[in-house]
Amino acid sequence: MIVVMETGATDAQVKVVAQRVDALGLKSHVIVGTERVVVAAIGEKREHFKDSLEVLEGVSAVVPIVAPYKMASLEVRGEPSCIEVLDFKAGAGQFGVIAGPCSVESEDQILQTARAVKAAGATALRGGAFKPRTSPYSFQGLKEDGLKMLAAARDETNLAIVTEVMGTGDVDLVAKYADVLQIGARNMQNYRLLEAVGAVGKPVLLKRGASATMDEFLLAAEYILNEGNPDVMLCERGIRTFEEHTRFTLPLASVPYLHRKTHLPVIIDPSHGTGHTYMVPDMAVAAVAAGADGLILEVHPDPSSAMSDGYQSLNFEGFERTMQRVNVVRQALASLS
Amino acid sequence: MIVVMETGATDAQVKVVAQRVDALGLKSHVIVGTERVVVAAIGEKREHFKDSLEVLEGVSAVVPIVAPYKMASLEVRGEPSCIEVLDFKAGAGQFGVIAGPCSVESEDQILQTARAVKAAGATALRGGAFKPRTSPYSFQGLKEDGLKMLAAARDETNLAIVTEVMGTGDVDLVAKYADVLQIGARNMQNYRLLEAVGAVGKPVLLKRGASATMDEFLLAAEYILNEGNPDVMLCERGIRTFEEHTRFTLPLASVPYLHRKTHLPVIIDPSHGTGHTYMVPDMAVAAVAAGADGLILEVHPDPSSAMSDGYQSLNFEGFERTMQRVNVVRQALASLS
Amino acid sequence: MIVVMETGATDAQVKVVAQRVDALGLKSHVIVGTERVVVAAIGEKREHFKDSLEVLEGVSAVVPIVAPYKMASLEVRGEPSCIEVLDFKAGAGQFGVIAGPCSVESEDQILQTARAVKAAGATALRGGAFKPRTSPYSFQGLKEDGLKMLAAARDETNLAIVTEVMGTGDVDLVAKYADVLQIGARNMQNYRLLEAVGAVGKPVLLKRGASATMDEFLLAAEYILNEGNPDVMLCERGIRTFEEHTRFTLPLASVPYLHRKTHLPVIIDPSHGTGHTYMVPDMAVAAVAAGADGLILEVHPDPSSAMSDGYQSLNFEGFERTMQRVNVVRQALASLS
Amino acid sequence: MIVVMETGATDAQVKVVAQRVDALGLKSHVIVGTERVVVAAIGEKREHFKDSLEVLEGVSAVVPIVAPYKMASLEVRGEPSCIEVLDFKAGAGQFGVIAGPCSVESEDQILQTARAVKAAGATALRGGAFKPRTSPYSFQGLKEDGLKMLAAARDETNLAIVTEVMGTGDVDLVAKYADVLQIGARNMQNYRLLEAVGAVGKPVLLKRGASATMDEFLLAAEYILNEGNPDVMLCERGIRTFEEHTRFTLPLASVPYLHRKTHLPVIIDPSHGTGHTYMVPDMAVAAVAAGADGLILEVHPDPSSAMSDGYQSLNFEGFERTMQRVNVVRQALASLS
Repeated sequence: MIVVMETGATDAQVKVVAQRVDALGLKSHVIVGTERVVVAAIGEKREHFKDSLEVLEGVSAVVPIVAPYKMASLEVRGEPSCIEVLDFKAGAGQFGVIAGPCSVESEDQILQTARAVKAAGATALRGGAFKPRTSPYSFQGLKEDGLKMLAAARDETNLAIVTEVMGTGDVDLVAKYADVLQIGARNMQNYRLLEAVGAVGKPVLLKRGASATMDEFLLAAEYILNEGNPDVMLCERGIRTFEEHTRFTLPLASVPYLHRKTHLPVIIDPSHGTGHTYMVPDMAVAAVAAGADGLILEVHPDPSSAMSDGYQSLNFEGFERTMQRVNVVRQALASLS
Repeated sequence: MIVVMETGATDAQVKVVAQRVDALGLKSHVIVGTERVVVAAIGEKREHFKDSLEVLEGVSAVVPIVAPYKMASLEVRGEPSCIEVLDFKAGAGQFGVIAGPCSVESEDQILQTARAVKAAGATALRGGAFKPRTSPYSFQGLKEDGLKMLAAARDETNLAIVTEVMGTGDVDLVAKYADVLQIGARNMQNYRLLEAVGAVGKPVLLKRGASATMDEFLLAAEYILNEGNPDVMLCERGIRTFEEHTRFTLPLASVPYLHRKTHLPVIIDPSHGTGHTYMVPDMAVAAVAAGADGLILEVHPDPSSAMSDGYQSLNFEGFERTMQRVNVVRQALASLS
Repeated sequence: MIVVMETGATDAQVKVVAQRVDALGLKSHVIVGTERVVVAAIGEKREHFKDSLEVLEGVSAVVPIVAPYKMASLEVRGEPSCIEVLDFKAGAGQFGVIAGPCSVESEDQILQTARAVKAAGATALRGGAFKPRTSPYSFQGLKEDGLKMLAAARDETNLAIVTEVMGTGDVDLVAKYADVLQIGARNMQNYRLLEAVGAVGKPVLLKRGASATMDEFLLAAEYILNEGNPDVMLCERGIRTFEEHTRFTLPLASVPYLHRKTHLPVIIDPSHGTGHTYMVPDMAVAAVAAGADGLILEVHPDPSSAMSDGYQSLNFEGFERTMQRVNVVRQALASLS
Repeated sequence: MIVVMETGATDAQVKVVAQRVDALGLKSHVIVGTERVVVAAIGEKREHFKDSLEVLEGVSAVVPIVAPYKMASLEVRGEPSCIEVLDFKAGAGQFGVIAGPCSVESEDQILQTARAVKAAGATALRGGAFKPRTSPYSFQGLKEDGLKMLAAARDETNLAIVTEVMGTGDVDLVAKYADVLQIGARNMQNYRLLEAVGAVGKPVLLKRGASATMDEFLLAAEYILNEGNPDVMLCERGIRTFEEHTRFTLPLASVPYLHRKTHLPVIIDPSHGTGHTYMVPDMAVAAVAAGADGLILEVHPDPSSAMSDGYQSLNFEGFERTMQRVNVVRQALASLS
């Protein structure tokens, strides 16, 4: 860390800072500039040290130098990770496509969708059985019945099942049926839930919170990794900005950024990231071009009758055409390397 | 709702929309404009109807007319609510001040603080026993030991205890010691937790999520109210924006807005809302002037040694001076009405 | 427009609104819902009518139905526009690449760059002669000398020259040398400047303001079109959000959105949109995949010695490799249609 | 500046950085940490040095230590400035109130308003003669006729005239009639205009751009100061965020922040900052409580017939009551110091 003193900070204040740095088990190093003094704190960083220094008198700012996450970092692992479940693979050159409806609505709906998305190239099936809804009056999902329908679809198609778990009390139940546990954007910093899925031996798809910074996102992953579960996929699904013409703003620069910082695979969600069916294919293909390790797409047999999120769902034909574009772009880029 | 059709939508598409509106139990009303057709949907609104209409072909937008929350609305209750616990009162003209450290650190620390803030005019004591921390490596709180220290402070001072509950598994434990259950900003849309505190007979302080819209905030309150718990306080603690010179951006216009829309009391948190001790007094007084029903302030015997959030905590003297300013402004404004 | 009345609005208030609507030359149509009354205003919309209605007593909100821009809209023109200057073409299926340094620094620098980017496939040369800088103490550009160097580069290479004009007083001078006048993001709502470039017979590259909504962006274009200049290109260069790991957040969903709303070509700027050289190639290729009509990229012979923006500039080799990826993706996608 | 190297940066890369630092006329100082090397650059900072270092290989980040503005800084001047024109004073303990309509509409309207706001305590009169409008089809102001009406109102009331100048071509004309030149939020980074008003001997009211950081805001002021005009007032008028229930988000923490960094007076605009008449009084009083040096408020004889911004304008009675609240709060706070 670098502790920047205020202009005019006294020698005594600088000394207190240096002593605090040393007391924290770091090594202080004072540099006197023309306008300000800075104190470098050398040693391994722990996040709350920042607070301990920021509060001292005469301190203007504390600038962290090292990333606050460890197990999630690319530096520590040295190479990208690949997450594999059944036929699904994502990361380290593998590309995985997760497709399916926002909500599981019926056995027929989910089976039809599973067959269609598999035929078009998906390797995992998404579908919500427990639905986090902004309003308590909205449809909340079929719960365990929905999970059973998903499991039945897996049994027929061998697609990996990706479904959301909303609370610690549901983790065992969901893990009984699902292959990948999804943590929704609203729960990205629900630490109890992160710990609970960290203790389960199944891969986790962690969605970025709508206003999470990258450090917060990677530290949320760190909570899971820290419990002993190494199989975390990061899902960029859009951030909340002033833009009104899309549901969220989908920042694809997250892909090169995360690939530089972490070994965890990066999955893009153009359905939530845009909120409009007509934008989904273009943004799916763009995500591939940006280097994403996979996609998660909402697909419904008849979006106009979907119980949730129909306005951002592809129908089977739309998904198939999107996959064709995805595939030609992947092949084209592969031909160069 | 108002369903706005695309320019060039066909008569058949308009007809499908009108039929869907009627099938939802609403009454459709078609208006033909010079450039576009709109279909008004008359009747009581439920949120997921919006989705059901937005997905239809030829639809450009669906504009809700009525607020999606009911029990939280001022219209429904007709007058502001006041939440009372021990000596703490907030809402409907009553002003409540919650003060105390970010984290409970020791019995001595919390008792000292309780006495000091009570002497300066606080009616409730805050203090974190379960701490949601961005990093798994940061101090996570004293847990039940911390709760016991808070309870001891209440027993001596009669201050109401306000403390955070992070997971459904902790609700009973926290409710055993606390007078007011706090839901942190990161858990504002942790619906399982909202339901759990809704089922407990204790008041709830619900913090606004850092990127929550007002409708989302009020619907989160609605989740709690909907479980039968009428005692919810709304806490504005700042939103995430592009600003970097404050930890969050604290939008005090939330006060007049919420007072117009809901009967629930509005508490302002200038400590998290700014992230800098030196800004807290000015923003606390500004909150009072804006009409807030209460404040929640971080106060620590020695902020420079605090285990968390010291950089935004007042010391006892700073709190006392802030309370003086708060009081003269309240009196001055009261003299006018 | 739809005027939504407050719950409890009186009949007299509704009547005043209806009369105001009629007085504005529109036709009012009152719809009585179960909870609220809405007044539809039928007829051609003008923006300030919204204000005139929003101020009336009892009005809750005014919802515009029709886009506020006309000449920029796809509806009005019916088909996409292509902007052509020298060898540069963008829009309606044509793809144009503008490349070059942030600032023109010397004749040698700009000539070298012009040759290199042309060889790799660019059809226009960018380079700042008048530089808008956040600080008055930063390098402000070579001014007319820079313009002359750009013109010399065009004379040799036939690349179209794209350069920024910062003030109305410079329009004639810049237009004397440049082929395309660039309006920077900070001047997107400098209406005097928009009018001035609208009166010049040269194409304009209009950059989106860092916090401009799409309606504001298209209305800025409308200012130029309204002065009789039909040749406007829209440049998405990123928006300001809470994200700190990129200079701006680059929302590629702007491409499908703008293609749906306007006939004007859409150019993406991944250099400013990310602010980091290492992200530029991925985002350039992603922009192509999203359907952009062109790219503008910062390229410098030696970014580490650039006088401005070197941290987001490609060197010649980086540009050439980016163009290879751009080209294979364009071909791959073309093979499907 | 502190140059943070990447983990794994080579000695050669560190050496290049240190050499560049020295070549820039600064003094380099290398600190070897356990995970990373940092290079401190000691000496007076100039903004573009940051760029020059950021581009070097092996550099992870460059952290500025000193503020980029000079003349605007409190450090340099040592005490707050007060701007005085006619009866208007703001800053250094003086509180100035600027009130009046969004647009000058007629002599009668502006004279009536001038008398009413003066009677209630305003010391300056605002009114737009040149109106920057999002749409080219909206009312653009009465131009010189409007300026003459403003001047007539000043002649009668001695209120200082504050009015916007939109382009360099209008500066002389506006300066002929006005006492304070207003730079609108959209033109905050119109550097040609900043230079032009910097060369005029009249005070300037500089509005913060809707997505400007504080450094950008203060550097815009620096452009004006740098031309020799010392009389700049900073106006916070709200920033663009994801919030939809207000026109902008008005961050009152700007007041304590700016008072800590700059000697220039800080004026708050609750009219644009909220966009709703009913919020204006609460936020005006809150601004005073936060320590603002003045207010600018939209006041219109009959907001429901205003040609622009009526929905955020106070009528005379609303302004008078707001001023009563403002005054009692100012007195109450003054009684404490």
